Amino acid sequence: MVGGGQGAFIGAVHRIAARIDDQYELVAGALSSNPERAQSSGAALHLAPERSYSDYREMARAESQRPDGIEAVAIVTPNYLHAPVATAFMEAGIHVICDKPLAISLAEGRQLAALAKQKNLLFALTHTYSGYPLLRHARAMVEAGEIGELRLVQVEYSQDWLAEAIAAGGMSEGNWHNDPQKAGPGGVLLDVGVHAYHLAQFVSGQTPQQLLAELSTFVPNRTLDDHVQVMLRYANGAKGTLWASQVATGCENTVRLRLFGSKAQLDFDQEQPNELWFTPQGGNRQRLRPGRVDSRAAAHATRVPAGHPEGYLEAFAQLYLDAAIAIRALQAGQPVPPEASWLPTVEAGVDGLAFAEAVLRSHASGAQWTTVEGAQAG
Amino acid sequence: MVGGGQGAFIGAVHRIAARIDDQYELVAGALSSNPERAQSSGAALHLAPERSYSDYREMARAESQRPDGIEAVAIVTPNYLHAPVATAFMEAGIHVICDKPLAISLAEGRQLAALAKQKNLLFALTHTYSGYPLLRHARAMVEAGEIGELRLVQVEYSQDWLAEAIAAGGMSEGNWHNDPQKAGPGGVLLDVGVHAYHLAQFVSGQTPQQLLAELSTFVPNRTLDDHVQVMLRYANGAKGTLWASQVATGCENTVRLRLFGSKAQLDFDQEQPNELWFTPQGGNRQRLRPGRVDSRAAAHATRVPAGHPEGYLEAFAQLYLDAAIAIRALQAGQPVPPEASWLPTVEAGVDGLAFAEAVLRSHASGAQWTTVEGAQAG
Amino acid sequence: MVGGGQGAFIGAVHRIAARIDDQYELVAGALSSNPERAQSSGAALHLAPERSYSDYREMARAESQRPDGIEAVAIVTPNYLHAPVATAFMEAGIHVICDKPLAISLAEGRQLAALAKQKNLLFALTHTYSGYPLLRHARAMVEAGEIGELRLVQVEYSQDWLAEAIAAGGMSEGNWHNDPQKAGPGGVLLDVGVHAYHLAQFVSGQTPQQLLAELSTFVPNRTLDDHVQVMLRYANGAKGTLWASQVATGCENTVRLRLFGSKAQLDFDQEQPNELWFTPQGGNRQRLRPGRVDSRAAAHATRVPAGHPEGYLEAFAQLYLDAAIAIRALQAGQPVPPEASWLPTVEAGVDGLAFAEAVLRSHASGAQWTTVEGAQAG
Amino acid sequence: MVGGGQGAFIGAVHRIAARIDDQYELVAGALSSNPERAQSSGAALHLAPERSYSDYREMARAESQRPDGIEAVAIVTPNYLHAPVATAFMEAGIHVICDKPLAISLAEGRQLAALAKQKNLLFALTHTYSGYPLLRHARAMVEAGEIGELRLVQVEYSQDWLAEAIAAGGMSEGNWHNDPQKAGPGGVLLDVGVHAYHLAQFVSGQTPQQLLAELSTFVPNRTLDDHVQVMLRYANGAKGTLWASQVATGCENTVRLRLFGSKAQLDFDQEQPNELWFTPQGGNRQRLRPGRVDSRAAAHATRVPAGHPEGYLEAFAQLYLDAAIAIRALQAGQPVPPEASWLPTVEAGVDGLAFAEAVLRSHASGAQWTTVEGAQAG
Repeated sequence: MVGGGQGAFIGAVHRIAARIDDQYELVAGALSSNPERAQSSGAALHLAPERSYSDYREMARAESQRPDGIEAVAIVTPNYLHAPVATAFMEAGIHVICDKPLAISLAEGRQLAALAKQKNLLFALTHTYSGYPLLRHARAMVEAGEIGELRLVQVEYSQDWLAEAIAAGGMSEGNWHNDPQKAGPGGVLLDVGVHAYHLAQFVSGQTPQQLLAELSTFVPNRTLDDHVQVMLRYANGAKGTLWASQVATGCENTVRLRLFGSKAQLDFDQEQPNELWFTPQGGNRQRLRPGRVDSRAAAHATRVPAGHPEGYLEAFAQLYLDAAIAIRALQAGQPVPPEASWLPTVEAGVDGLAFAEAVLRSHASGAQWTTVEGAQAG
Repeated sequence: MVGGGQGAFIGAVHRIAARIDDQYELVAGALSSNPERAQSSGAALHLAPERSYSDYREMARAESQRPDGIEAVAIVTPNYLHAPVATAFMEAGIHVICDKPLAISLAEGRQLAALAKQKNLLFALTHTYSGYPLLRHARAMVEAGEIGELRLVQVEYSQDWLAEAIAAGGMSEGNWHNDPQKAGPGGVLLDVGVHAYHLAQFVSGQTPQQLLAELSTFVPNRTLDDHVQVMLRYANGAKGTLWASQVATGCENTVRLRLFGSKAQLDFDQEQPNELWFTPQGGNRQRLRPGRVDSRAAAHATRVPAGHPEGYLEAFAQLYLDAAIAIRALQAGQPVPPEASWLPTVEAGVDGLAFAEAVLRSHASGAQWTTVEGAQAG
Repeated sequence: MVGGGQGAFIGAVHRIAARIDDQYELVAGALSSNPERAQSSGAALHLAPERSYSDYREMARAESQRPDGIEAVAIVTPNYLHAPVATAFMEAGIHVICDKPLAISLAEGRQLAALAKQKNLLFALTHTYSGYPLLRHARAMVEAGEIGELRLVQVEYSQDWLAEAIAAGGMSEGNWHNDPQKAGPGGVLLDVGVHAYHLAQFVSGQTPQQLLAELSTFVPNRTLDDHVQVMLRYANGAKGTLWASQVATGCENTVRLRLFGSKAQLDFDQEQPNELWFTPQGGNRQRLRPGRVDSRAAAHATRVPAGHPEGYLEAFAQLYLDAAIAIRALQAGQPVPPEASWLPTVEAGVDGLAFAEAVLRSHASGAQWTTVEGAQAG
Repeated sequence: MVGGGQGAFIGAVHRIAARIDDQYELVAGALSSNPERAQSSGAALHLAPERSYSDYREMARAESQRPDGIEAVAIVTPNYLHAPVATAFMEAGIHVICDKPLAISLAEGRQLAALAKQKNLLFALTHTYSGYPLLRHARAMVEAGEIGELRLVQVEYSQDWLAEAIAAGGMSEGNWHNDPQKAGPGGVLLDVGVHAYHLAQFVSGQTPQQLLAELSTFVPNRTLDDHVQVMLRYANGAKGTLWASQVATGCENTVRLRLFGSKAQLDFDQEQPNELWFTPQGGNRQRLRPGRVDSRAAAHATRVPAGHPEGYLEAFAQLYLDAAIAIRALQAGQPVPPEASWLPTVEAGVDGLAFAEAVLRSHASGAQWTTVEGAQAG
């Protein structure tokens, strides 16, 4: 693991996710660039002292030379380090599991994709929501034609944790999320906008051709955007709206996707992840549940019997499980089995950065329709 | 009543609404332009034969000369007749209660507003949703500053009744909703888009300055739009999204408004009209109910004790009740009492047409930001 | 109308309900036994002075002798007057629409049933909830075998309006609901317990053979019960639980019925009356809506298009509409048409009193299993 | 771990739960009494071959003599083995984490409690639902007096997995749940009834003094009960109803608890475990969420940020975490810290068996009021 030392947030989530299905053991880390904190964080996680590094380059080099060196690295640093850290480990022949966004520019992202391909390494990107069994089932339904031809996409990601002025405690002064050098050129856009975009793409199987966007910053003294609204146009004529906000007062973490096809509607909100609402045209809403759908896709992502809710950590664990399956397949020179092939990878990350780059261009043009470059389903 | 003969839909709803609070008696009508159907429809409603007209101009003339002539007329015709019918009755000194949209062009709407003002007549416009007690309460909360400064408006009006091809039965061949001569230049835009717009305006108290819009038509052989997406910019910097659709597969009649202010969020969906969700920034959602809020605005629009749900017909009745109160005040030369002053009138209709006209211009320009002309709160 | 003068509560609800479908005109009343209040209440409702009575016996006599005398009377008095008032009007050959409970003893109830039969008069009992379209649909589903063999009945009626001490304002000092002379021998039992019982019987089509019950009184200085718990045994082996409470803190007016059959479950709560939840064994919940079920029973009780919620007043109106249909049929010497035959009548009232009487006996015996006397589906 | 070999169900859940918070390592097991399956199951879980036992007595003996022997054992066998297995390990000085029910008789349960006390060992009982953060918060609210004096308890545990005939696949022929020798004298009663009972006790802090119960068996050829209904009387005058069913058609795993106090209501359903509904008397419902309550009790049981749902496995993990905290305290000769002291232990198990034994007696008496023996809060 790189990043995730004491006081960090997402690192602990990754560690729980990696443990749940018992496919990983944490044996080495560059948990902090501060040597003392790296050591103490490592000790708290029972790392051998000599495998607690303070420099990720040193870690990549040393681990690749050990006979018991790590097989995969989890990258949980601030955004701007994703690309250099991932590059260092891929150069050393080590598989990568990276938090989103993939990188802070589309160019960087493309380089990562090229390197992963060249080295034949797995590059998993933790778009967590795609690990929920019912989103897997939703995708399977779309693929099976159960909603018909796609017409409308409505996706939103709304939070309120940045709704208050920085001084009032919404975000601490030096938080890297507010620093374009570390977070990249988008605030809410890169933090959660790319999640929303991936979700729509993951389930619908379609990538918009054009978009039109406006970024806003509501809270004074904030450097980056805290709200984004986007209109989407798809190749088949479908239309969409995406909005993401960290000033959506009163919202904890609404991540809602609705797809309207010519035959049916699907509706999912990750705050109730054990429910997927399916409504046939002109019909009654049905509440699908993981234990009540006859679905290989959902079953693969479910650990408990019907009626026992799973949550965010299990969705996260699903990505780690799929990554383990994929890594073993690559190590054996075999194709990734179908059930693990929906794992978001570096290609999904490139798509997300293409989206973000198009949003920034559209916004700069005063919300003109803008082509999404070379987008491809992830 | 003009329109609403046998086989018509909204006329019967108006009649029930008028009866609920016992303020109206139906005594005359031009229920159909077909003389036979006008007579038989009138007979079915117990109208005296001589007060069952087949020409609305004749009705306006005759009723204005009777000592017991009607005090107010309800107009429930296809859209293109709203303006000429309302004009005829106002010229005859008769108050008007008109279904939405006000008219089929902004120019027409402005003439109606001018005439109503000149004649000092009530011109009520049945934007039904504004009759719900909890939307009244929501407006009162906004006015009292309970959500703080407005930041985001999210409003949607989604139905699926036109999601199927005309031939497949979505809409009958000769339905006037698909005829621009009768419906006006907007399909979903004038049919329900103006409802959504009014709702946002009614509760927030704000009118957008600019909008950007795209109309779509998904179903083959349809003349008018069946889907519209709009971005909104408000004078205070607030942003918004409005979408209205009659191809929203699986939606019956979702009319959902969310307002996010600096202090709190309000969330309402008319399919559950006895619930208004209030969430303070960083806090827990609260389900407000008509019988559980301490609110003069809600109490004025409530007929039953706590826990007994009211619905669409009662909301509609509320507009009729408020119109009766307003008409009596005008007849007495007195100001309309505050509790009835939230009744949507011809000014709200003009605002709605200004919105529609701006949407049409923006769409024609390829979704450019477009100024909403002379908009004013209704 | 007898009862329902100024300050009364349920009378106004009956009057709105009677108006909605335009089948009734209020022309006479004994709105109060106080002559002055009777006159002023009548004047407020536009009654002719000579048809505003202060004695219901006088009203029955006088109206039965007028050529334009009333066809039906609505009884909205305190419970103890239901039987004498209904008797007086039936003796005069006038149809009766009576609020629940039918009477304050089983013996009284049986006399009313016998008299109605002998006189061939309609005796409608306003168990309002049976007017909801989705409860009609639920009954149709049960009759059609869609839930299979009935196994479990869970019904509850919970309110909190009596949860506070009388002195604290829960109920005014002299409220007749707390006076056994006027309310009868049951508090919550006769006030809402009989509603819950009727609801289960109405939808399931079954009447319990035995019950076991405990009454409780939580609030000091209350004379009658404010909480009742009952276990039910049905002839076919089905089991049930019924509870009704007016000290269910935080509940407005929950009236929830769940039926579990060998094939499926039905679930209804009148606070969301536009939803009926149907779940097949082992399957997913489906939210049925009035406009989305293919049901003659529901269509007969629906006035508005899909997605426009109806509520308590429309359910109440449905009983008035069915009563009008039934009265016309009786007047014409014809059978009541099937669509109006689900109207609760005096037989349902007798069943409810048999239930109440069994509860009182079981409670007095320390919660022994007790036979429900001569119960029959209503 | 004893039990939980290949093909077993709850063992895998325990193992995930133990891993989540990284406090346990699985190093030994008697996963099956079949030596071959014990070895292969152990190998699949990476146990050293010599620590994969086929006899739990041998395992207790051997592990207690190893310097690196296990500190605690998880017991996930059929019910009838809980007592002998737990006894063997406690005799060997090893802490116990045992699935429910504690044992198959009250006498057995009391012996286990006595032995745990004598040996000063932790005996944790996995009443999973008590690990949910919002049930911890609910208990804290009750303790703080926020609902006032307890009046009503409504608790239900309903499933449909046994609603179909055994032959039809509801339960396999030889399933031990249908064998009184292995399951004990109660079917649904011991399987999930004790969960419901514990839940009510855990949150309310009160134990009923008397109960009245009826067991039912709906499905042919079933030996044990599949439905139980119970009325409860508490020392302070509060009343309650508990029902548990495995023939509740269409229910996956509803575990709903409602407490009504003189001041407020609490409402929880484990199918939506990230919501606790709080309603003050006469007020509006509030949806409390783990990340939005200011609560040490909830924070102790939460791993993720606001808006990220946790589920059943995290609740289960919470019991393992609390057990680890408690075991370390006992090993250090210190008191269990307050935050881990709500862990259900052998005393809760004794209470549950006292409940079950009273239910069986009441049922045998034809549903007479029956005293719950020596019940004490767990």
